[in-house]
Amino acid sequence: MRAEPDPQGSEATVAAEDLRRRYHQVRQQSVALCEPLAIEDFGVQPMDDASPPKWHLAHTAWFFETFILKQQVPGYQVFHPQFEYLFNSYYNGVGQPYPRPARGFLSRPTVAQVRDYRAHVDQQMDALLQVGLNDEVSAQVVLGLHHEQQHQELMLTDIKYNFGHNPLYPAYCESKPAAVAVASDSAAAKTYSEYTGGIVEIGAVSGFAFDNETPRHPVLLQAFQLADCVVSNSEYLSFIEDQGYARPELWLSEGWAAVQAQGWQAPLYWQQHDGVWFEYRLDGCHELALHAPVTHVSGHEAFAFAQWAGARLPTEFEWEHAAGSAPVDGHFVEAQYFHPQAAGNQPGVQQLYGDVWQWTASSYAPYPGYRPLPGALGEYNGKFMSSQLVLRGASCATPRSHARVSYRNFFYPPDRWQFTGIRLAKDVE
Amino acid sequence: MRAEPDPQGSEATVAAEDLRRRYHQVRQQSVALCEPLAIEDFGVQPMDDASPPKWHLAHTAWFFETFILKQQVPGYQVFHPQFEYLFNSYYNGVGQPYPRPARGFLSRPTVAQVRDYRAHVDQQMDALLQVGLNDEVSAQVVLGLHHEQQHQELMLTDIKYNFGHNPLYPAYCESKPAAVAVASDSAAAKTYSEYTGGIVEIGAVSGFAFDNETPRHPVLLQAFQLADCVVSNSEYLSFIEDQGYARPELWLSEGWAAVQAQGWQAPLYWQQHDGVWFEYRLDGCHELALHAPVTHVSGHEAFAFAQWAGARLPTEFEWEHAAGSAPVDGHFVEAQYFHPQAAGNQPGVQQLYGDVWQWTASSYAPYPGYRPLPGALGEYNGKFMSSQLVLRGASCATPRSHARVSYRNFFYPPDRWQFTGIRLAKDVE
Amino acid sequence: MRAEPDPQGSEATVAAEDLRRRYHQVRQQSVALCEPLAIEDFGVQPMDDASPPKWHLAHTAWFFETFILKQQVPGYQVFHPQFEYLFNSYYNGVGQPYPRPARGFLSRPTVAQVRDYRAHVDQQMDALLQVGLNDEVSAQVVLGLHHEQQHQELMLTDIKYNFGHNPLYPAYCESKPAAVAVASDSAAAKTYSEYTGGIVEIGAVSGFAFDNETPRHPVLLQAFQLADCVVSNSEYLSFIEDQGYARPELWLSEGWAAVQAQGWQAPLYWQQHDGVWFEYRLDGCHELALHAPVTHVSGHEAFAFAQWAGARLPTEFEWEHAAGSAPVDGHFVEAQYFHPQAAGNQPGVQQLYGDVWQWTASSYAPYPGYRPLPGALGEYNGKFMSSQLVLRGASCATPRSHARVSYRNFFYPPDRWQFTGIRLAKDVE
Amino acid sequence: MRAEPDPQGSEATVAAEDLRRRYHQVRQQSVALCEPLAIEDFGVQPMDDASPPKWHLAHTAWFFETFILKQQVPGYQVFHPQFEYLFNSYYNGVGQPYPRPARGFLSRPTVAQVRDYRAHVDQQMDALLQVGLNDEVSAQVVLGLHHEQQHQELMLTDIKYNFGHNPLYPAYCESKPAAVAVASDSAAAKTYSEYTGGIVEIGAVSGFAFDNETPRHPVLLQAFQLADCVVSNSEYLSFIEDQGYARPELWLSEGWAAVQAQGWQAPLYWQQHDGVWFEYRLDGCHELALHAPVTHVSGHEAFAFAQWAGARLPTEFEWEHAAGSAPVDGHFVEAQYFHPQAAGNQPGVQQLYGDVWQWTASSYAPYPGYRPLPGALGEYNGKFMSSQLVLRGASCATPRSHARVSYRNFFYPPDRWQFTGIRLAKDVE
Repeated sequence: MRAEPDPQGSEATVAAEDLRRRYHQVRQQSVALCEPLAIEDFGVQPMDDASPPKWHLAHTAWFFETFILKQQVPGYQVFHPQFEYLFNSYYNGVGQPYPRPARGFLSRPTVAQVRDYRAHVDQQMDALLQVGLNDEVSAQVVLGLHHEQQHQELMLTDIKYNFGHNPLYPAYCESKPAAVAVASDSAAAKTYSEYTGGIVEIGAVSGFAFDNETPRHPVLLQAFQLADCVVSNSEYLSFIEDQGYARPELWLSEGWAAVQAQGWQAPLYWQQHDGVWFEYRLDGCHELALHAPVTHVSGHEAFAFAQWAGARLPTEFEWEHAAGSAPVDGHFVEAQYFHPQAAGNQPGVQQLYGDVWQWTASSYAPYPGYRPLPGALGEYNGKFMSSQLVLRGASCATPRSHARVSYRNFFYPPDRWQFTGIRLAKDVE
Repeated sequence: MRAEPDPQGSEATVAAEDLRRRYHQVRQQSVALCEPLAIEDFGVQPMDDASPPKWHLAHTAWFFETFILKQQVPGYQVFHPQFEYLFNSYYNGVGQPYPRPARGFLSRPTVAQVRDYRAHVDQQMDALLQVGLNDEVSAQVVLGLHHEQQHQELMLTDIKYNFGHNPLYPAYCESKPAAVAVASDSAAAKTYSEYTGGIVEIGAVSGFAFDNETPRHPVLLQAFQLADCVVSNSEYLSFIEDQGYARPELWLSEGWAAVQAQGWQAPLYWQQHDGVWFEYRLDGCHELALHAPVTHVSGHEAFAFAQWAGARLPTEFEWEHAAGSAPVDGHFVEAQYFHPQAAGNQPGVQQLYGDVWQWTASSYAPYPGYRPLPGALGEYNGKFMSSQLVLRGASCATPRSHARVSYRNFFYPPDRWQFTGIRLAKDVE
Repeated sequence: MRAEPDPQGSEATVAAEDLRRRYHQVRQQSVALCEPLAIEDFGVQPMDDASPPKWHLAHTAWFFETFILKQQVPGYQVFHPQFEYLFNSYYNGVGQPYPRPARGFLSRPTVAQVRDYRAHVDQQMDALLQVGLNDEVSAQVVLGLHHEQQHQELMLTDIKYNFGHNPLYPAYCESKPAAVAVASDSAAAKTYSEYTGGIVEIGAVSGFAFDNETPRHPVLLQAFQLADCVVSNSEYLSFIEDQGYARPELWLSEGWAAVQAQGWQAPLYWQQHDGVWFEYRLDGCHELALHAPVTHVSGHEAFAFAQWAGARLPTEFEWEHAAGSAPVDGHFVEAQYFHPQAAGNQPGVQQLYGDVWQWTASSYAPYPGYRPLPGALGEYNGKFMSSQLVLRGASCATPRSHARVSYRNFFYPPDRWQFTGIRLAKDVE
Repeated sequence: MRAEPDPQGSEATVAAEDLRRRYHQVRQQSVALCEPLAIEDFGVQPMDDASPPKWHLAHTAWFFETFILKQQVPGYQVFHPQFEYLFNSYYNGVGQPYPRPARGFLSRPTVAQVRDYRAHVDQQMDALLQVGLNDEVSAQVVLGLHHEQQHQELMLTDIKYNFGHNPLYPAYCESKPAAVAVASDSAAAKTYSEYTGGIVEIGAVSGFAFDNETPRHPVLLQAFQLADCVVSNSEYLSFIEDQGYARPELWLSEGWAAVQAQGWQAPLYWQQHDGVWFEYRLDGCHELALHAPVTHVSGHEAFAFAQWAGARLPTEFEWEHAAGSAPVDGHFVEAQYFHPQAAGNQPGVQQLYGDVWQWTASSYAPYPGYRPLPGALGEYNGKFMSSQLVLRGASCATPRSHARVSYRNFFYPPDRWQFTGIRLAKDVE
């Protein structure tokens, strides 16, 4: 959805062969994620934001064709002259994009034709990668791979939105035992870790980073506390049972308007039958797992929950500082849970990565001195810096190699269809 | 979309075996019409009114399951408990229908599952038809077949809407030579036939008819003239070139509002490139055939054209009286043109059936003494008798056995996605 | 809202002095109706269809200025160059009209300036009327007066809509004793009068008529029954208590959609407090008068009520034939009830005029041979002949001299803010 | 629209008599601002955000009645039981507010009745203020006065929106000579002042401040440059003439969507006739004054202009730091220009206050440790902290005593009806 090649250029030291291997691995993963799908599932767009899997597959090929092949391969013939239009997401610099809400109307090209498109692009890219590329182009290829990983995550959440709104509730995957064994009475007291604040460095260090993570710069923090775990379903249920959705004083004005307009009574995918709560997950409808993290909550719900809990959401700077050099570890998409897992019993901050994206209190804004990429790639991130909130961490739908401490995800406060969750913070009084 | 079994019961004399044969023939035709489709084409709903082909296939099975099998087969087990909800179009008497605008989000059941559903229903129906049915149930089966034929026509126009709005403009069928050889200079003067009026009988006589065609009753007509042919593309072009779309005085108030809100400049599926007009047809995009009938015009466009031409639209009674006992002949769906054909050179009224539905000036209203069918089947036709106009004739997408002189089709004045055209009338001064 | 001068020209025999006297009387009545208003009440447009009283006052002056003074007075100077735009309702032939939904934003011109505008027009018109006018222009003046009377009725219903939606519920007038003394147990059995049908003449005979009432022409009627009285609040309450608003089988499809979208549970202006029904009337909020006619029901509610009652709505032809030569008598605006009154005890058809407009089953359509007035005045009526229903009779807000047996009022089936009511009809079996 | 009494309580030292005098002075000013209005102008709500002047007058009385009189006067009888509902803006803690978009439909209470309401409240408040109040209540009275001053500014911009969209373009005030004589060729090169950054203190110091300006806290700034003057019409014209409104690369994604959806081609109130630009001001339509500040631009336009100029918007912290201890001086409402004035020739930062509010790059967010006021007054500011941008300074419609360096105004990025303008900033490279 948005990105920048490593501004330090160190990515360019990736051996060409490594890049070629990684290219094929990432590209193959997009296809692998679609294996459980029927042909019919590839074309559905159940809401404007949830694009059809087929569109994701084509758009990610379009990205390489548009920004690499057309620039680097002399006399390159596009696979299909209309695809530049159909699979342009939002790059006005490339041309007028096909209207986003109409992506679900494209029964053609077929899935097979999109696979041919991908194969064509892969073949051309492979030739290019065998020859070797200069640093700048290599960096753009790496950007294309991170771009594709972003779409892998979106593809899963878009599939979930489709399946989760079909009255037949099809399952995307088989059920697996929970990752963490939690005693049923372990609803331990919420614990926080404390940080002293001061001037800290924020932003990308080395390795790949999107342009929105740069430049690295100092930020002044006051002392704060960060919750060790993300909020669980059990905790969120207490909020519901305490009439959280009926008390305007807990909500931002826009959030309260959304509650009333949308009729929110619980997170997306929750349903109550005969007093029992169920949740649609990618492995089907199941009784709500109390110790699992609450997910599919909007930023407004995260805010209201924090108000109710006498806490607040962390800023993105607090989060990044607290995450520090903790290992980028967790239940990523490779673990194939496709759902966030309960916290473990170990002390200290956990669940930073790989269960749920964590809403922050920070508006998505440029870092001081921020410069978008040159050309149409500059539209990747910067033009979205209004009205959105930053989320930090990574989710159960994120590829492990896509996560890092400086990563800034961003969505609108009412958005609920991503694997979003809540981590609380507090002032140190 | 709506219907009634022959109220005279004469249909009940159809030999049981004939009914069984006809059942399988009509059912098979629905599937045959989908042969050119890719799996991806079955699920798309490009606008609220244009349902996915898969939905049509399932709904027509649902009709037999709901109104015949569940009533007639003791202990009948439905194929799938959720299908009653998913494939109910608008029968509140049967239960809450699945929201119409969301039909395109149902990637499941798959096409294969819908075929299984149809096979299940067909097998059960076949058993029933072998045993033989009483007159009332036979009449309901016949109703179900006419219902299925209506959906066959809708399926074609819905597919056309989908393909005709896809920038790739896929073709549904191969091109065929035009049915009628027309000299390029034959834009003959418009001719009219004259009728004296008086009291005439209107409505269904014998054989099958929907409830809305009954009861047959007398209507008083004044003398009138009816155009021998429907309006051609060439004639309609003159209207466009005479600024027809820019002159509010030609339009009904609602029509003029639609012109401005929708930006209408020409019929649906027309496009102008470098001063040349093209039309998307089911066999692809082609240069406009000047002698072919104009089609895909709204009732508002039909009205404005008539105003411009110094004529008017006929009432449905004038049309039915003029059609009289003319043979129900024309370019129906069986001719596989999938597009209306030019008029021939013979004198007198022609093109009554099988090219385009012809907008009339008549609002869709009950005939004096009209009684809807009992029970939920009463929702088939009667509840739509507001704000719509009657169209008469039949189109290139209508099965021949579905057309008859008393047939009343009905759509809203702004609708354009059916094979609709214009036949003019005039007062006799 | 719409009109035509007497096509027979007999109105031209009105002596010039009579016309001048009548001009001032009608014009004065518009002002008199506004006497109870505060200045603040003149500018409010509480919904798109309910124009501000000030706008009505200005538009009716505009009508005379545009269609008479600018045509007949050599060198006529318009009162204000922008008023032609601001107070044009919908005459595209005169120029682009100011957007209807924005009429309530015009705090200027002030009420005093609009009165000056009216005085200017009246002075110029008076000079013209003193000189005397030829038949054609006289007929246009008469048209302007009927036009003004239509706006007088709209002004009252628009004021009612405004007051009736203000939580303070201001009264427009004082309360008066009911016109008819009705014993509290007189909910007599509904009686009908019977008519034999045959060929009857329909349409304007002599005297003024709008163009839409012409030409007079024969219509073939089948035998029918017409209810002697309009439906009372008491009868309508039975429909409500019998779950009329919760039974889709009683409603047209569009009506049922309106019930759900608008949340209709009762006629407009009804409220239930502690189990007691109240109604806002122009004399304030009062407990529902059971014997008074139900009013402020949509055409959809009228249809559903008739279904529930085992009856139907009459056609406009049945109504006109039954009304025949009955005196044009009733509780018109001059009676100053400003609300429909209960039926009397006399036998036979009553309440034809002067209580409520009566929804018919007839779509608003041109009579055979209908010709709109020439020029921009042709937009008065004809262009609205789609999607609307004809109402017959007259209401408590209609001036007596404005009513006649051939009068065709028309509104959209969901409209409720006029004094609309229900008269039932039945077939003769 | 939002506020908090001085959290340090120092305002409580205001002598009681001073408070009483100030109370009457501020209250009187609201009425004085309405003197040029006709009664008709008091009730108009030309868009959802632009409330009628009458509503402002009543709501500001409601504020004192609700938060002071009902709490402090034993046995206080409200002026009218429905006014609590009608004139509640958005305080859910007080009860369900009357729907904002319907404020323009309230022709009652009349202006005279609202004046009575104000007189009643003033009389009761006066009695209370004579007695003397404790510190907490005094602080709430001061809050009420600042609240009223906010509404005075809104009243002016709402009146302007109404008059500026009326085709008659009424003037609110007489024209005055410009405040600053500017040579016609003085389009001097844009100059910037430079600041070194470091840790600076931000937020309210002493005296009254809204809760959203607290607590004062340290912020780390990088070195930056701030433009000495706000952007002039002349500069903005260059942006327009350089196709600024047609180049998506200059705009945020949401801004570009607004340009297309709203058809923005220039600031609000600009019109081009025969190649000459005119601007509606509160003194009527005039040819565009080139040296005057551009105003009525959205945050999106401010952003795009800055992009085009190779600069950026300042953060609110940069602005506050740069403004520092400069005198709170400028063309406030008391100067009665009712329009921003051109910059002078003096060097250094100017036009900080009193011409236009200046969009910043900062999202409206809580300061670290922010606590809203207790009770329903806590809804004043905090609940709006999403999706909005902070504006700094003050405008030609702001009362002088209402401005201060720490003041945080906030509006949505697309809002244009306030006196909003642009001040540029730059990084120090």
